[in-house]
Amino acid sequence: MTAIRSDLGWSTPDRIVVRGRDLPGEILGRLNLGDMAYFELTGNFPNEKQSRLFNAMAVTLVEHGVTPSALAARLTYLGAPEAMQAAVAAGLCGLGSVFVGSMEGAAKLLSEAVKEKKNAETIVAENKRIPGLGHPLHKPVDPRSVRLFEIARDTGHYGKYCELMEELARLKKLTLNATGAIGALACELGLDWRAVRGIGVMARAVGLVGHLLEESRQPMAEAVWHQVEEQASQHLKK
Amino acid sequence: MTAIRSDLGWSTPDRIVVRGRDLPGEILGRLNLGDMAYFELTGNFPNEKQSRLFNAMAVTLVEHGVTPSALAARLTYLGAPEAMQAAVAAGLCGLGSVFVGSMEGAAKLLSEAVKEKKNAETIVAENKRIPGLGHPLHKPVDPRSVRLFEIARDTGHYGKYCELMEELARLKKLTLNATGAIGALACELGLDWRAVRGIGVMARAVGLVGHLLEESRQPMAEAVWHQVEEQASQHLKK
Amino acid sequence: MTAIRSDLGWSTPDRIVVRGRDLPGEILGRLNLGDMAYFELTGNFPNEKQSRLFNAMAVTLVEHGVTPSALAARLTYLGAPEAMQAAVAAGLCGLGSVFVGSMEGAAKLLSEAVKEKKNAETIVAENKRIPGLGHPLHKPVDPRSVRLFEIARDTGHYGKYCELMEELARLKKLTLNATGAIGALACELGLDWRAVRGIGVMARAVGLVGHLLEESRQPMAEAVWHQVEEQASQHLKK
Amino acid sequence: MTAIRSDLGWSTPDRIVVRGRDLPGEILGRLNLGDMAYFELTGNFPNEKQSRLFNAMAVTLVEHGVTPSALAARLTYLGAPEAMQAAVAAGLCGLGSVFVGSMEGAAKLLSEAVKEKKNAETIVAENKRIPGLGHPLHKPVDPRSVRLFEIARDTGHYGKYCELMEELARLKKLTLNATGAIGALACELGLDWRAVRGIGVMARAVGLVGHLLEESRQPMAEAVWHQVEEQASQHLKK
Repeated sequence: MTAIRSDLGWSTPDRIVVRGRDLPGEILGRLNLGDMAYFELTGNFPNEKQSRLFNAMAVTLVEHGVTPSALAARLTYLGAPEAMQAAVAAGLCGLGSVFVGSMEGAAKLLSEAVKEKKNAETIVAENKRIPGLGHPLHKPVDPRSVRLFEIARDTGHYGKYCELMEELARLKKLTLNATGAIGALACELGLDWRAVRGIGVMARAVGLVGHLLEESRQPMAEAVWHQVEEQASQHLKK
Repeated sequence: MTAIRSDLGWSTPDRIVVRGRDLPGEILGRLNLGDMAYFELTGNFPNEKQSRLFNAMAVTLVEHGVTPSALAARLTYLGAPEAMQAAVAAGLCGLGSVFVGSMEGAAKLLSEAVKEKKNAETIVAENKRIPGLGHPLHKPVDPRSVRLFEIARDTGHYGKYCELMEELARLKKLTLNATGAIGALACELGLDWRAVRGIGVMARAVGLVGHLLEESRQPMAEAVWHQVEEQASQHLKK
Repeated sequence: MTAIRSDLGWSTPDRIVVRGRDLPGEILGRLNLGDMAYFELTGNFPNEKQSRLFNAMAVTLVEHGVTPSALAARLTYLGAPEAMQAAVAAGLCGLGSVFVGSMEGAAKLLSEAVKEKKNAETIVAENKRIPGLGHPLHKPVDPRSVRLFEIARDTGHYGKYCELMEELARLKKLTLNATGAIGALACELGLDWRAVRGIGVMARAVGLVGHLLEESRQPMAEAVWHQVEEQASQHLKK
Repeated sequence: MTAIRSDLGWSTPDRIVVRGRDLPGEILGRLNLGDMAYFELTGNFPNEKQSRLFNAMAVTLVEHGVTPSALAARLTYLGAPEAMQAAVAAGLCGLGSVFVGSMEGAAKLLSEAVKEKKNAETIVAENKRIPGLGHPLHKPVDPRSVRLFEIARDTGHYGKYCELMEELARLKKLTLNATGAIGALACELGLDWRAVRGIGVMARAVGLVGHLLEESRQPMAEAVWHQVEEQASQHLKK
């Protein structure tokens, strides 16, 4: 039987401690939200360069416009506006293998390949599909990947994982998309690949709150519903 | 019929625009995750002082140790480790009227009271319970509120909403807890009270990812389950 | 401190007991799924008449075609087909005050009115909106309500709550919709009004599984997404 | 582009049709909730024998006492009692690969093995782990499996899939647990293995409503939270 034990946080009447640091005294006013996420995932405060890069990675994932996830959140809010947390939750439930999974997949592939000293040719030979490559819209380059790798160079984090990811894109003649870039950068920062999907989940939570605030002021969910219902059932009503 | 329309984001092959700003060129490397949240909620980039305060508010809400929300996420992860986004979603579903609601309630109460020029005595006379006051553990002061108001003073955001909230705490002889402080500060920043619960939801998403990463390495959910099941059914097994 | 205690179920190596009844010996093969739901909610096995009525109530709520809830589930499944439970969960999150809430509201209103011996006129005078009345499509009658009250008469469950609900519809000149009928019937069966939303939630879970199975064979979510995204952002791309 | 089209349900002012059948006229009062689920999954009304077996399968999965899923729902309800649908959703989110997945896995394994004419020895040789076998508590037999196969024999549904599953249990010297039995029975009924997890999800939704009703009357979530928090952080407070 495993023990019931957590090292993340605890409190006494006059103290609140998060991962060994005093929340009011050492964290508030010093860490921004992205730094706090980095601290949650690694146990360390980021230095200035790590902070800049990690925040850019997370910010990239916040807002992608009207995605399936944003639509699910808005349609949920339509039925339960009193529970906006549940609408955010509904939106997050779809961040699985199809969209956010490629980021996790890229980080896993790269970290294992580097550990086993595999080069790009071997990886391509062994994997029919490389996560993080290809984009339906952004061709030949994804401007987010370009910018993220620029920030990586500025902060001294452009290393072997980024190089390998770019080499894979060249060999496959596919766009290195933002999830591939972020997967590589997560490796450069030494993050556990199991934490990588989490970066997408937390970032999207931020964006979904934005969508729900817009929905509360300028609603579209009801119109979407009626339009889709009409289309979906017209063949039955003849 | 309302129009189907969103102003949050859109893309073309070589551009990605969020709320009118070029994501790679104007946002990445410039805004941290908290700034991006502020931008999502208000449509404006925060200045340095707004950034410092807003990030501190959000960071305060990230990690509260082993809460009901963290436990729900961990117990969900136990059954579906392949879908960590769903475990975060499960944890968020409980951020309702009991815990996070008080932040929203405080912001709503203060913004309406100031609009209607009500003073603290009137508010106390009219409301049996004031959201944002009282704490089971942190007495007589919540060290987070103290620190947040200090940052508010540093950044020129300690104003009438903070004063009113502190006056309410004095009259009711209750701790001004962190949710009350954040509700007041949201008003100082001019945020819509409907967005306030959202700050808690996005911050907690960050913390829940931290809990799930810890759960993946140092699990407690199975032990919690067996212990509680044993306790809950022992009266039946006699 | 409340005790940690549940009376719902427990097991030993050779026994599985649910609410005091032996699951394999007394329940399986004897109760249908609706009866089991009745047993969960009341602690009693339904008699034949109660079973017929309760099952009809639950069955009414299973499938309403392409609802916001079904769309949220399908859009979630698009991103995470490996976690269909999370897609059902996303669909359920929206069963709040706007749609399913009226059923709970009707049950609460009727049970309190009967307890306080209020007649229909008084109720109408006291309530601007009566939950369970009105329907955008089904006018002047909702055929489900007609049929449910017919089953209620057949099974000896058409009583004062049903009469009151019909009287309210007459006074307000509004359709007695299915949620109003079910709210009244829940009162006739002596169900706690707090359990009434739960009937909708469990029934819709059944229907959402049906939608996801159809989505897996004949997908529409991706087409919905692209169509809505195009509509929502066309004003920005000019 | 796929079409936006659903065949599940549609309405006109005086008609409500579900999968081609008139809901008030042909379904209400005739199908019980399990029959309706069968209808949603297959498009056919079950005959009496299919109804008896399918309902028994679903009923088996409703209530398992204080499970991780029930605890997640109760802990969620503690924070958001106004949104009980979200608490059910939170409970469902954990019905993934670890618990309910074995039912789907058994159905998939059996249906593929029979299609490819593999015998039990081959299956055992090819699969290190057979889903649906083994139980931590119920040894040497799971009384639910015994009873379900008895009902299968009564209704003429004990066939090659059940035999194969029992043969696998003998070869592996493991308990044929309820999820293995239900996986086999789903094959006997001709259900798509992709629908099998759905049976668990809908059944558990019923059970979770029961847990939340008990939680509203006899709460345990707060006590669980305080107890676990105390245990989890005691090593930090020294």
